Amino acid sequence: AILAAAKAMLRDGPLRGKRILVTSGPTHEPIDPVRYIANRSSGAQGTAIAEALSALGAEVVFVTGPADTPRPISAEVVEVETARQMAAAVDAALPCDAAVFCAAVADWHVVGAGSSKIKKDGTGAPPGFELAENPDILATVSRGDKRPRLVVGFAAETDDVIAHATAKRKRKGCDWIVANDVSPATGIMGGTQNAAILITAEGADPWLRMSKAETAATLAARMAEALT
Amino acid sequence: AILAAAKAMLRDGPLRGKRILVTSGPTHEPIDPVRYIANRSSGAQGTAIAEALSALGAEVVFVTGPADTPRPISAEVVEVETARQMAAAVDAALPCDAAVFCAAVADWHVVGAGSSKIKKDGTGAPPGFELAENPDILATVSRGDKRPRLVVGFAAETDDVIAHATAKRKRKGCDWIVANDVSPATGIMGGTQNAAILITAEGADPWLRMSKAETAATLAARMAEALT
Repeated sequence: AILAAAKAMLRDGPLRGKRILVTSGPTHEPIDPVRYIANRSSGAQGTAIAEALSALGAEVVFVTGPADTPRPISAEVVEVETARQMAAAVDAALPCDAAVFCAAVADWHVVGAGSSKIKKDGTGAPPGFELAENPDILATVSRGDKRPRLVVGFAAETDDVIAHATAKRKRKGCDWIVANDVSPATGIMGGTQNAAILITAEGADPWLRMSKAETAATLAARMAEALT
Repeated sequence: AILAAAKAMLRDGPLRGKRILVTSGPTHEPIDPVRYIANRSSGAQGTAIAEALSALGAEVVFVTGPADTPRPISAEVVEVETARQMAAAVDAALPCDAAVFCAAVADWHVVGAGSSKIKKDGTGAPPGFELAENPDILATVSRGDKRPRLVVGFAAETDDVIAHATAKRKRKGCDWIVANDVSPATGIMGGTQNAAILITAEGADPWLRMSKAETAATLAARMAEALT
């Protein structure tokens, strides 16, 4: 806490005075007390982005699901488990000057996730559980009353990366999409590198393959340009 | 590796010369390249049991799913992701003198888990994915040709703990069941303590609430009695 306070006093850079929200990590959607549905996300990219924005002087609010990566020491950290909890934490963190939605949020949750463990019934028949759509945090914020000036989404794609990410930018109403090819062959998912493509209203800007820290620094610098 | 070799040379105790298999951690069952179904298991209890058995002189083979806990430094470690991979690794590790099945293995896997990310189709309808039963590792080993002399299963229960665990012991054909009440109110799941009940042919022996290291030491001592 003392370290954070000292950092805040020393905070300087092009993003000084800007409050930026970063979401990170996976969400876990309970099936029953011992099982859940998860997204693969270490949280490494989100933590790197929060650190990079702080390094440029921003005040960062970091809303994270249960990720393995250490939390950014320079940010205000809010821990959540499910997509619905993340949506509520995001809403509570607004207004902000910018928001980066880096979390791998589950699209669905299990309806009526129970407090008793689901048992095999001996017939070999699998359990039925009903899925329902989670709130779409990126679209909700992009079209909401408290919309930050700059809204950045992420897209993890396995096919037709630019086409899917460009369509996603329009569908969600955000300003930028950072698109990644996460097909297993790339080794990006769970790895240390990234090969991102920035999708803006002007088109697609493919970045070189670089570390997640460099990707974060590149994005933070672009955001500083756009916000100042 | 040098430390492990030194430990092996120094290895002594009642379980010296016994080869014991320990499974640990959750399994992850892929839905698509970015999503999976998981069990809540930190792997802490399994690592503690492997260390306790090694401390009594056993040679431990440790088959683990993707767990957060550090692996036991005293064991031969085999890393797997899915229940089917765990079943194969267990079969490959036999014969053994004893086996402790501490892993939280998924009961089901997703049939035809794809290499492309499942997309929302805009209708709000959830995706259909078909579940199929995984191999029952505990029952397969307990009734198999390579059955160890002492087979110990674990049961994580939320209701009627003793009745469910006693029925599980008979149904699986194992010798002992270590039963835990994991209903959310107990705080055991993800916590540092355990309140186990040992189910044997003689009945139910409830242990005091103790740390996972103490639970492991208690189980290892009981196993040493039974095997020597």
